[in-house]
Formats: sequence, structure tokens, C-alpha cells
Amino acid sequence: MATTDRLRPSRYPKRAHYDAETIYPILDEALFCTMSFVWEGRVRSIPQSIVRVGDSVYFHASVGSHFFRSLAQLDEVCITVTLADDIVVAKTAFNHSINYRSVVLYGKPTVIEDQELKYEAFKQLTEKMVPGSWDYLIPMTQKQMDKTMAIGVPITEASAKVRQGPPTFVEAEADHQIWTGLIPIAPQRGAAVTGPDAGDIPLPDHLK
Amino acid sequence: MATTDRLRPSRYPKRAHYDAETIYPILDEALFCTMSFVWEGRVRSIPQSIVRVGDSVYFHASVGSHFFRSLAQLDEVCITVTLADDIVVAKTAFNHSINYRSVVLYGKPTVIEDQELKYEAFKQLTEKMVPGSWDYLIPMTQKQMDKTMAIGVPITEASAKVRQGPPTFVEAEADHQIWTGLIPIAPQRGAAVTGPDAGDIPLPDHLK
Repeated sequence: MATTDRLRPSRYPKRAHYDAETIYPILDEALFCTMSFVWEGRVRSIPQSIVRVGDSVYFHASVGSHFFRSLAQLDEVCITVTLADDIVVAKTAFNHSINYRSVVLYGKPTVIEDQELKYEAFKQLTEKMVPGSWDYLIPMTQKQMDKTMAIGVPITEASAKVRQGPPTFVEAEADHQIWTGLIPIAPQRGAAVTGPDAGDIPLPDHLK
Repeated sequence: MATTDRLRPSRYPKRAHYDAETIYPILDEALFCTMSFVWEGRVRSIPQSIVRVGDSVYFHASVGSHFFRSLAQLDEVCITVTLADDIVVAKTAFNHSINYRSVVLYGKPTVIEDQELKYEAFKQLTEKMVPGSWDYLIPMTQKQMDKTMAIGVPITEASAKVRQGPPTFVEAEADHQIWTGLIPIAPQRGAAVTGPDAGDIPLPDHLK
């Protein structure tokens, strides 16, 4: 993976990582990202669902989306993923922090014309959202495929930044009787809530 | 609040909102955002903690941060916040969705020189991270204030996009016996975990 100047943080360089072993699991855990780009000389950003297949990330939208059609004309987009794990509670407000795992990725977006790859990216996104569900759902039709636009961005210029662990110990504050520690804030999947149109249909095993 | 062309979504315009009553609570619930901007003609993005005070949002960093010093020279940044609430499980992969609340905000960043405002923004960020903690912590010193840079961005050009509710009902799929509903994925605060330097110091009431 290429390590470029703009991927090197100006603060806490030890928190930066440039290897797929660190970057890919963060991309795989995140359900959404922020996609940013320059449009007519000005910055634009939009939240997007994201899925990794191999060494690229993929995005889906309706073929009716002006935004998505515009994306394919760009030389580059910036994709940012942030997973917040804990609030880091220190003795001073100054030393409070967040335990997080983030990825920043730059690359050229390309419309996916390959039908097999497009199908695979759709399948992997669905399985990421609801593991084990692909074979349970009504099979995807060609018409649905044709209505969907998929865009891929290769993971060639990317970095992760990670902060984990307890609050930093400050010697000068050792005598202050103030609690320090972590408050977990990571998303947890809750119990599935049956929708109004499901009637008596039982919750499938993969959702239990 | 100004509604500009770039804030109007090309898809699902009914999901867009331009009022403070919708936008402010989303900004207040989000612990972090993605900040994006144009630098030397190219897009850059970085995750940042965010706090709203009045009609502006504020960001903090060390005065040693090159990135933050550069920010203050920009005409505009784009701030994106996304809260993901549920996975929306439909009968087809095609109709799967996410219940989310997002905000996109454009504005000019300014270094906060006003010491009272800088202090207030720091206090509000700390109280957002750990409600009720400000008066319990070691009081902030002038030295810590001087080491911290605060940047404010006015909330003048902003929009929210919100999808909530069950999966869309599709008449043609009514006879398919497939479960539909929601899987909650919103972050939940877990029980506080005492750090290695806290010794026998009891968990303060505001963290119970």
C-alpha cells in the first residue's frame, strides 16, 4: 500500500498504521463511511454504506442518482471510516480522549460494469448488514441489478489511525483522588424488531 | 439557515430537513464528525470530536497541530455527522436500508481567541463526553488552555437527512413469507471500566 505525505498525521505518528492487517478489519466492521471529494473547486461530503471485497471498497446507489453518476467522473474521492470504542476518562478535561479506529483512503472511483463483481459486491454488502441472510431473501433480479449502480475504489493509498488503552498516566496528578477509566461506546446490535408487514412470519435463525 | 443547491439531495428529497430543531439534536448526539476540506486543490478528510455551543460547532486540538493551524486559513470546511440507528431488513437485498440521521454543514473555520468562549467550548465538550463530570475533574489550568487550540464553525449552511421507520412495503412481495423488520445498531454506553491508575478511588455518582 502506498504511504503518501497526506496520510502521515501531524500528531501522534505512533497511532498511524499502513498495513492491510490493520486497515481491512476496520473497513469490514464499519457499516458506513463519509465520502468526500472536490466538486467545482469546493469540498463536498456524503455518508455512504461501504463494503470491502478483495482489495477494493464498493458503494451502491440508484442509477437515478445524479450524485453517483458525477462521482464516476472524478479523479479521486476520500473515504473516511471511524469506529469509536470508548470514552477515555482522565483526571483532567485536557487529557480526555476517545479510543477509536479510523481509516482514511484516497482513490479513483470507477463504475463497475462486470455483472459478476457487481452481484458479489451487492451480496457482500447484504451479508455485512445481516450475516447469513443472502440465501433467505427473495433472490436478486436482473431488473434490480440494472436499477443499481455500483462504484468501486481500490485500496491503494490508505492509512489507519488507532488509539486504544487506558488514560495516559500523569505523574503530577498521582495524588489527586479522581477516578479514571473507560466508558464503552461501541455500537451493539440489539434484538431484531419485527416490522408491521411481517405478520406471523417467524424470526429466521440467522437473526436470533 | 441558508438552503443552498449543494445541500439538496438528488435522491429522496423528502428525507431532507433544513431546520435547527432537526439539525441541532443530531449534532448534539454525535461525539465525532468527519471534517473535509480542499487542500492544494485536492480533497482531505479527518475525523474530529465535535461540540455545539449556541449556533456554532467547535473543535479542539493541540496548538502543535499543523493540521489545525492550516484549517484556520481555509475559506470553508465540510462537516459530516452520521448517526446509524437501525438496519432496515426487507424481503429483498435491493430494499435493505439503514435508519440514519445525518447532517452536512459548510462553513468558514475561525480560531477562537475569546478565552471565555474557548473555556465554555472545552467545558461543553467534556460534559458531552461525560455528563456531570466537569466539576469533579481537576480544574482546567491556564497552561492547558494555552496548549489548546479551538476552532469554531458557524451553523449557517446546513442540512439534515433522516430515514426512520420500517422497511418499505412492496405489494408484489406480499405473498412471500419472509421476515422484515429492524435491527437496532445505535451506540449504547456500557458500564464504566476502572483504569489501572484509579486504585481504590470509587466510581463517581455521575458515572454510575
